[in-house]
Amino acid sequence: MTEKKEIKVGESLSIAYLGPKASYTHQAALDAFRDESYTLDPQITIEDVFSAVQAGKAYRGVVPFENSTNGSVVFTLDLFADLHNRYPDILVCGESYIPVQHCLLGHFPDDKRGPSATPNTASNVIESPLSSGAVTPTNREPIPQKPTARPIGDLSRIRKIYSHPQAWGQCKIFLNAYLKGIERQDVSSTSRAAELVSEDESGTSAAISSAIAAKLFGLKVLAKGIEERGDNTTRFFVIKRKDTDDDRITDQVANDQEQASAEQWKSLVSFTVDHANPGALAHSLSVFERYGLNLTSINTRPSGVENWNYIFFVEIKGRKIEGNEDEGEVNQALRDLDKVCRGRRWLGSWRNRLRDSV
Amino acid sequence: MTEKKEIKVGESLSIAYLGPKASYTHQAALDAFRDESYTLDPQITIEDVFSAVQAGKAYRGVVPFENSTNGSVVFTLDLFADLHNRYPDILVCGESYIPVQHCLLGHFPDDKRGPSATPNTASNVIESPLSSGAVTPTNREPIPQKPTARPIGDLSRIRKIYSHPQAWGQCKIFLNAYLKGIERQDVSSTSRAAELVSEDESGTSAAISSAIAAKLFGLKVLAKGIEERGDNTTRFFVIKRKDTDDDRITDQVANDQEQASAEQWKSLVSFTVDHANPGALAHSLSVFERYGLNLTSINTRPSGVENWNYIFFVEIKGRKIEGNEDEGEVNQALRDLDKVCRGRRWLGSWRNRLRDSV
Repeated sequence: MTEKKEIKVGESLSIAYLGPKASYTHQAALDAFRDESYTLDPQITIEDVFSAVQAGKAYRGVVPFENSTNGSVVFTLDLFADLHNRYPDILVCGESYIPVQHCLLGHFPDDKRGPSATPNTASNVIESPLSSGAVTPTNREPIPQKPTARPIGDLSRIRKIYSHPQAWGQCKIFLNAYLKGIERQDVSSTSRAAELVSEDESGTSAAISSAIAAKLFGLKVLAKGIEERGDNTTRFFVIKRKDTDDDRITDQVANDQEQASAEQWKSLVSFTVDHANPGALAHSLSVFERYGLNLTSINTRPSGVENWNYIFFVEIKGRKIEGNEDEGEVNQALRDLDKVCRGRRWLGSWRNRLRDSV
Repeated sequence: MTEKKEIKVGESLSIAYLGPKASYTHQAALDAFRDESYTLDPQITIEDVFSAVQAGKAYRGVVPFENSTNGSVVFTLDLFADLHNRYPDILVCGESYIPVQHCLLGHFPDDKRGPSATPNTASNVIESPLSSGAVTPTNREPIPQKPTARPIGDLSRIRKIYSHPQAWGQCKIFLNAYLKGIERQDVSSTSRAAELVSEDESGTSAAISSAIAAKLFGLKVLAKGIEERGDNTTRFFVIKRKDTDDDRITDQVANDQEQASAEQWKSLVSFTVDHANPGALAHSLSVFERYGLNLTSINTRPSGVENWNYIFFVEIKGRKIEGNEDEGEVNQALRDLDKVCRGRRWLGSWRNRLRDSV
């Protein structure tokens, strides 16, 4: 059944990732594919990444899956749910954890005013919000949270902020303290936000983006680490087509693959249940417990078939042995799952990378 | 313990809802509180609604919880998760299902050009996308989906579309067929989108919004029912402070309250589990099965305490009997849940309205 793709030595393999360049997904792709034999190809949407891998145009794809503060990336879940059967051959084959340190990027006042402009001295550094009223206790917020980061430039000229929708939620406290009420515009990526600000000649816009993007687009870092949680991390999945095997293992599914115990692997499974049956979901989840497979995450999305019915995504510690369907706990659990759920799909097994990076 | 608020006859009660006026939440608030004795007060954010109810400024609040196509409203889930203990007294006490029919609103060309402008005749109605190449099969989309709605005006002058982020996902096929590549700007509500378009004197912008908003802001309906699924519905929760009782039942928790069997009620429970224990989640869910309580939805959000740990939200068919903690299946299930989960909170019981409206 499985068609082996022959890969020639020295051939450059394309890795499709959610771009643009300098995005966090780009960092994840660099983390997973360090070897120079890979060509990293930015894509416009997450669906474009799935599409390139499904069509065999890309050897692997890299997509965001989950942020430790904001939760799941629903666009990615919906592509795995694959209601229109467009991506039937996509499997997860790896993961990567990338720490997210958001910065406020923009222009300093003197960027635009020429040499006579006021230098950026301590005098135009914004007053601490602790004395500005920004974190004054109110009825609504009796114990207001204090931002951990302080701006290193004057923010009073900023009239508009660009960023990816997920970033607002991660930087709420900083934005509330220093940029309350300033217009926000959602853009497709934090990197695109930086690009837009670099093109803004008025110098009155700012972006929530990365330090890498500041370098790439020649912007100043006006504040660093403005996210609430210092351990803010995004998890990315590496995806492949099921008929491409792992013969050429220079990526993260490393040589120690065979030595790794099943416990060091994770698997993703999606399933639907009969919603009229009170115990259907509990029964479905208990099959994993029966074989000692720890659940590491669970997600639900609308089933797309009937309103208020859902497709469940379960991630378990364990590895599906391919080829021999009777071997291993994951295969046994999946066999039992088939008896209690309506339909299910195994979406891949990969090495657990959580300990390595965080 | 429970402080009874005395409500005088004839007193107008404030209902806080996620505004602005003519939003879908406004429609939900009108649906739940039809009586003229209520004053409907629009709020800027979902958190403002929680805040007004928690502070006792509003008698009830109405917030969006879930859309049948797009899934859960994570902002609302995070407010129920209440990591900073700001809304400890909020309970769900009702629900409302509002069919969502998105329209494309804008100006007709002659709106701006005076009486000599071309009238909107059949000749400037856009060509069917079936012959325009918009739904031509491609490698990526071998069987492209056809939009169910057609524009009733020329869309070629539209340069920018405003809407709420959830609407893009619901109108993907229409947008791909008729407005591909046109700049999109996220705004806080579909109603606000209509307002912005009404203020745009160039007449080159459009909004994805409701027919009610078209009336309110004097806009033309350029296309009707542009969402993919005809049964697209949003579910709203009515929230209350736990110490306000239901003595004055003119709202949806109607007089038949006592007659309704437990099966006609739903309850919301949040809990966290010990992630190191493989069976913790399955055990937690099985307590509901033990008492025959059907799970109607499950959601997860980051726990906010430790990365990759989650808070679970479970909705069950059944009603918690207050006052007597030993009575009823829900109380028994909650007692058993306490033995297997780390921490849990009952977030309210209310009459199931699903059959009434959809």
